[in-house]
Amino acid sequence: MKGIREGVCLAEGFTAGAGRAGIKESSPKNDTAILYSSIPCQAAAVYTTNQVKAAPLLVNMEHLKDGKAQAVVINSGNANAAARNGMENAEAVAQAAAKVLNLPVSDVLVASTGVIGKELPKDKIIRILPEIELSETGSEPANEAIMTTDTKLKSTEVSFVLDGKVCHMGGIAKGSGMIHPNMGTMLCFITTDAAVSSDMIQKALLAQVKVTFNRITVDGDTSTNDMVICMANGLAGNVEVAEPGAAYDSFEKALHEVMEVLAIDIAADGEGASRLLSVHVNGAKTEAQAEKLARSVAGSTLLKAAMFGKDANWGRVMCALGYAGSPFDPDRTDIGFSSKAGEVLCCKAGRELDFDEDLAASVLAEDAVDINVDLHEGDASATCWGCDLTYDYVRINGDYRT
Amino acid sequence: MKGIREGVCLAEGFTAGAGRAGIKESSPKNDTAILYSSIPCQAAAVYTTNQVKAAPLLVNMEHLKDGKAQAVVINSGNANAAARNGMENAEAVAQAAAKVLNLPVSDVLVASTGVIGKELPKDKIIRILPEIELSETGSEPANEAIMTTDTKLKSTEVSFVLDGKVCHMGGIAKGSGMIHPNMGTMLCFITTDAAVSSDMIQKALLAQVKVTFNRITVDGDTSTNDMVICMANGLAGNVEVAEPGAAYDSFEKALHEVMEVLAIDIAADGEGASRLLSVHVNGAKTEAQAEKLARSVAGSTLLKAAMFGKDANWGRVMCALGYAGSPFDPDRTDIGFSSKAGEVLCCKAGRELDFDEDLAASVLAEDAVDINVDLHEGDASATCWGCDLTYDYVRINGDYRT
Repeated sequence: MKGIREGVCLAEGFTAGAGRAGIKESSPKNDTAILYSSIPCQAAAVYTTNQVKAAPLLVNMEHLKDGKAQAVVINSGNANAAARNGMENAEAVAQAAAKVLNLPVSDVLVASTGVIGKELPKDKIIRILPEIELSETGSEPANEAIMTTDTKLKSTEVSFVLDGKVCHMGGIAKGSGMIHPNMGTMLCFITTDAAVSSDMIQKALLAQVKVTFNRITVDGDTSTNDMVICMANGLAGNVEVAEPGAAYDSFEKALHEVMEVLAIDIAADGEGASRLLSVHVNGAKTEAQAEKLARSVAGSTLLKAAMFGKDANWGRVMCALGYAGSPFDPDRTDIGFSSKAGEVLCCKAGRELDFDEDLAASVLAEDAVDINVDLHEGDASATCWGCDLTYDYVRINGDYRT
Repeated sequence: MKGIREGVCLAEGFTAGAGRAGIKESSPKNDTAILYSSIPCQAAAVYTTNQVKAAPLLVNMEHLKDGKAQAVVINSGNANAAARNGMENAEAVAQAAAKVLNLPVSDVLVASTGVIGKELPKDKIIRILPEIELSETGSEPANEAIMTTDTKLKSTEVSFVLDGKVCHMGGIAKGSGMIHPNMGTMLCFITTDAAVSSDMIQKALLAQVKVTFNRITVDGDTSTNDMVICMANGLAGNVEVAEPGAAYDSFEKALHEVMEVLAIDIAADGEGASRLLSVHVNGAKTEAQAEKLARSVAGSTLLKAAMFGKDANWGRVMCALGYAGSPFDPDRTDIGFSSKAGEVLCCKAGRELDFDEDLAASVLAEDAVDINVDLHEGDASATCWGCDLTYDYVRINGDYRT
């Protein structure tokens, strides 16, 4: 909501703002955002696993070598990936922001999202930077500015306590195509006023990316620009979390809550999506097995199309389990669907049940549908999130560049 | 064409026919086919890599232990996978066909394609078997009967010479959803009057599946029912090909021609496809690297949607190369598109060229589009085939089961 402190501005000392550089000339919306902390932060980031890494990621790897940062400049409309003068342009934007904010350039991070292969119009971005007004209510404008094909804002926040001090953490994110596991997976910015060392931020980010952003899939494509940045400025006044232990666990738990909400928001707002799919694999021997199977189901194009059509086609779930590359026994496997409209079990021990097709159709008509798999092999489980495949996905991606 | 010997009936001694069992009550089309050789054949098959294997595949593994077969019964409309009484029903169909054709049951193979998880209506199939008329012009009716969402017949044939004898080989296939590499990939039946041992058929099938059917992708899904069967009855009178050598090479070359044509036909007729995509990766260090990169591009949902939109979005090609999981140097890579309308190079050494967008749009408007990648790292190359992602794919798969 406008006018309240939220998202990346909930934590003490953080402000944000946005402006219109005009990167896509035809679009009237803001396209450039700045996140800023009043004092230097401990910071860390996780990047895409794509071999083709956009220039901003390479710049940040350099700037984060000292584990410190104080601001982030983000633009939408151009990915600055496989683009002419990529490094020079990313550095030029960082330098211009450093000048405006009166910071060392190495404390400025950069992020870009949009079309791959076009040269970044750096002058347009540099020109707008001095005009961007930073405020404690700037999270939502910044969030809007970094959207591309997203249809909803993605923002969340939590409070937690570290040695008696109330700490705050908030994040914003953007999806929504090219969302696939095994990588940073999108742009996500998290700020906190807790005092945490950059090493511990890095450790917690790596652990939590695995169970949040790496468990969502929209279309199987893995972007060149994905990145999660977390900055901690210590204004909450706690003793710095600099090693594993109870305080670290509390910090990682807060990070988990923020990242899981944003990950699910991204899956639900997948390009063209009409519903969120949560694939739960239970009764597995190991979490790794459960995750591999759940991810295969969440990523099945055929199943995603069936979910769009509200078709309880559990055979496609079985098929996707079968090619996941992780052993399981089809003849012990149960498959069903549930949502707030009810629950239907379609397959028991690998064979079809005579289930109520009308009930199944109403279960699948909801905005959020659970796909439930029980392997009956052990106690481990995992959930992966995805969305259905719709006409709108094809429309959006059929003419994205032009 | 009706009335001529072609497809699986080109080779001496083979006949085929089709009938309507009524597996899908609402469909008036034939759904059951028989392929038959007048004398026993040496035979071999390659099966899906999906862990969930349909009952007919398990039956064939058993029946082909002796490397012999004389007939195949195929039904569409029901996959007999993860279905009640799957093995019993598949065996019952084989037994009924054996009785009608007066063969040992172990010389009858079975194949099914259609909905997963529904019990096979075996009585309907068994009832129609005696009414199916086998003839030398039966390849096309059989081909029609095994179609599901295919829009075109897939049939081809070649002639070749083994020790002075003219041999014939022909095949029919069906796609067209759940088409993805690393497996048998669809139903394909190949017959030849060459004399070849089952071991050599198996060897050639395995080698050629790798460079044909395993190089096509429609939607990333890997079916439970995919299978390629090849039967050789020896009526051409050549000395049996029973070991590697020049004769084996001629046989494998013929098999390659048949399988490549059918594989490309399947990719071109992918569910909802409006154009065939041939992804050529040249200048690679090894064929394995070229294949991995080409496959990733052919499978990219985002690129497939761009191709539907005739959008020369070469950045999505670069992105798909980047997440293929095989090292290459983006900064040496060229990317372009070509078709019979012309050729356009979009990216040179990893950076955008100012290419002619009008020419690119007309290149991409053709039915068959080549996506050309040059890594400039070596002499190896590979081609993978796919198709665009269209509204029709979503429509077809949104309500397939009902």
